[in-house]
Amino acid sequence: MSRKSPITNLLFLLLIFLFAFSAAAKSRSHRPPRPCRHLVFYFHDIIYNGENAENATAAIVGAPAWGNTTILAGQNHFGDMVVFDDPITMDNNLHSPAVGRAQGFYIYDRKEIFTAWLGFSFVFNSTEHRGSLNFAGADPLMNKTRDVSVIGGTGDFFMARGIATLSTDSFEGEVYFRLRADIKLYECW
Amino acid sequence: MSRKSPITNLLFLLLIFLFAFSAAAKSRSHRPPRPCRHLVFYFHDIIYNGENAENATAAIVGAPAWGNTTILAGQNHFGDMVVFDDPITMDNNLHSPAVGRAQGFYIYDRKEIFTAWLGFSFVFNSTEHRGSLNFAGADPLMNKTRDVSVIGGTGDFFMARGIATLSTDSFEGEVYFRLRADIKLYECW
Amino acid sequence: MSRKSPITNLLFLLLIFLFAFSAAAKSRSHRPPRPCRHLVFYFHDIIYNGENAENATAAIVGAPAWGNTTILAGQNHFGDMVVFDDPITMDNNLHSPAVGRAQGFYIYDRKEIFTAWLGFSFVFNSTEHRGSLNFAGADPLMNKTRDVSVIGGTGDFFMARGIATLSTDSFEGEVYFRLRADIKLYECW
Repeated sequence: MSRKSPITNLLFLLLIFLFAFSAAAKSRSHRPPRPCRHLVFYFHDIIYNGENAENATAAIVGAPAWGNTTILAGQNHFGDMVVFDDPITMDNNLHSPAVGRAQGFYIYDRKEIFTAWLGFSFVFNSTEHRGSLNFAGADPLMNKTRDVSVIGGTGDFFMARGIATLSTDSFEGEVYFRLRADIKLYECW
Repeated sequence: MSRKSPITNLLFLLLIFLFAFSAAAKSRSHRPPRPCRHLVFYFHDIIYNGENAENATAAIVGAPAWGNTTILAGQNHFGDMVVFDDPITMDNNLHSPAVGRAQGFYIYDRKEIFTAWLGFSFVFNSTEHRGSLNFAGADPLMNKTRDVSVIGGTGDFFMARGIATLSTDSFEGEVYFRLRADIKLYECW
Repeated sequence: MSRKSPITNLLFLLLIFLFAFSAAAKSRSHRPPRPCRHLVFYFHDIIYNGENAENATAAIVGAPAWGNTTILAGQNHFGDMVVFDDPITMDNNLHSPAVGRAQGFYIYDRKEIFTAWLGFSFVFNSTEHRGSLNFAGADPLMNKTRDVSVIGGTGDFFMARGIATLSTDSFEGEVYFRLRADIKLYECW
């Protein structure tokens, strides 16, 4: 009996290890999992309105037949497409040093309410972060928070996937928007 | 001999378990895998043509130099960019209750034949589904079926990936299109 | 002692196997991993400029208030949106047989420097490749190389994910661009 026990113990250890491994593999099916990386940033969008060419970080570049590229269209801006190159900051101050640029576009895509579709990247080139995170998804602007997908990443964010929870931290009329991006990555390489 | 057999049996079980596990890990390389989730929806696109402002769910917002934002351009609409907010239904009836909205854009991107590039989301907010699925990919409209990528999801579709097979279920002239989306998810969390 | 050794050996083998397996699972955290697939292509973009309708493979379809859809705008083309349907070749010769089409759009999105946001697909329908690869990401054109995400794939590239490293192989004025795409897939099914 005593002679078998070291082997038996080893077998039990192996079994425990296997079950743990198997459980880890299955843990995907339980939500919410823990993010492997968590980042919070702010970005600042100043839309060109015909008078702010100096400061504007964004501009309308597509509009429906009833709109134009200087003033956002009626019907909750349905059809307006905006290109942006917004500074990213660590805190909610527009004048804080930019740690990167949020670059891409959004399209207002509903007549009844403000909502948009987003395709953009966070491009970092600072001592802290190098590389990019790519995002896509629906942005129902009037919701307090809305989730878009992190569809990929490069450099420090190689092959990343996850969820970015956006919230409107502040706005001034229809010209300035400050967005908070709470980024949770669930696939890290 | 008989004293070793329980341990030996256990070892064989372990080996079988390991091989099964290893096989499961490798099964990725064999196609087609089984989807972890399968959904079918219809969505309905009514393009604004200058006369149907009431019913239109989509509008041209970008056009090439030789086109405009009211009438789809020649050369298979090459360069026309359309924004849409289409009702999603469970069956092929435009008047069935909408279970969500298909929101995003497509761009006709070939002169020789109808083909488009799609970026859009299915946004659900019903008792059955909450959350969104995000899509991107090429849509060669004249093919009976065409596959686009499910590049992410939120809410009930947290971190989803997969393939959506689109088919044109019906159309009327160049104004109304009904698309069937057969969505197979291969990564479910 | 000698009677236990076969079992002990088996146990050691199992342990080695387990550690190897565990190491493989963890290898994700070490960079750079080895791609499971590596492909190199060239694609050729000829932008419509009002005079080259015959040869043009791309056209401006969105522009800011200060621009138009025939000539690329000032301020590093900020706000210009271009739709393209470019031939893909295996080598750097525009006149080599096309193995597929690069279809989608880019938007110049910075005033201070040439940089763009890309959403596009490689669509293959040759004896060698069938299916599509979908891409998204920031393209800082003045960098020698820049990485965008492979966000999905269909057909032969079912569920693919990876990184495409783009470089400008050649250009003529602001009309012709030849891009080299070095595609490394890290998720293959």
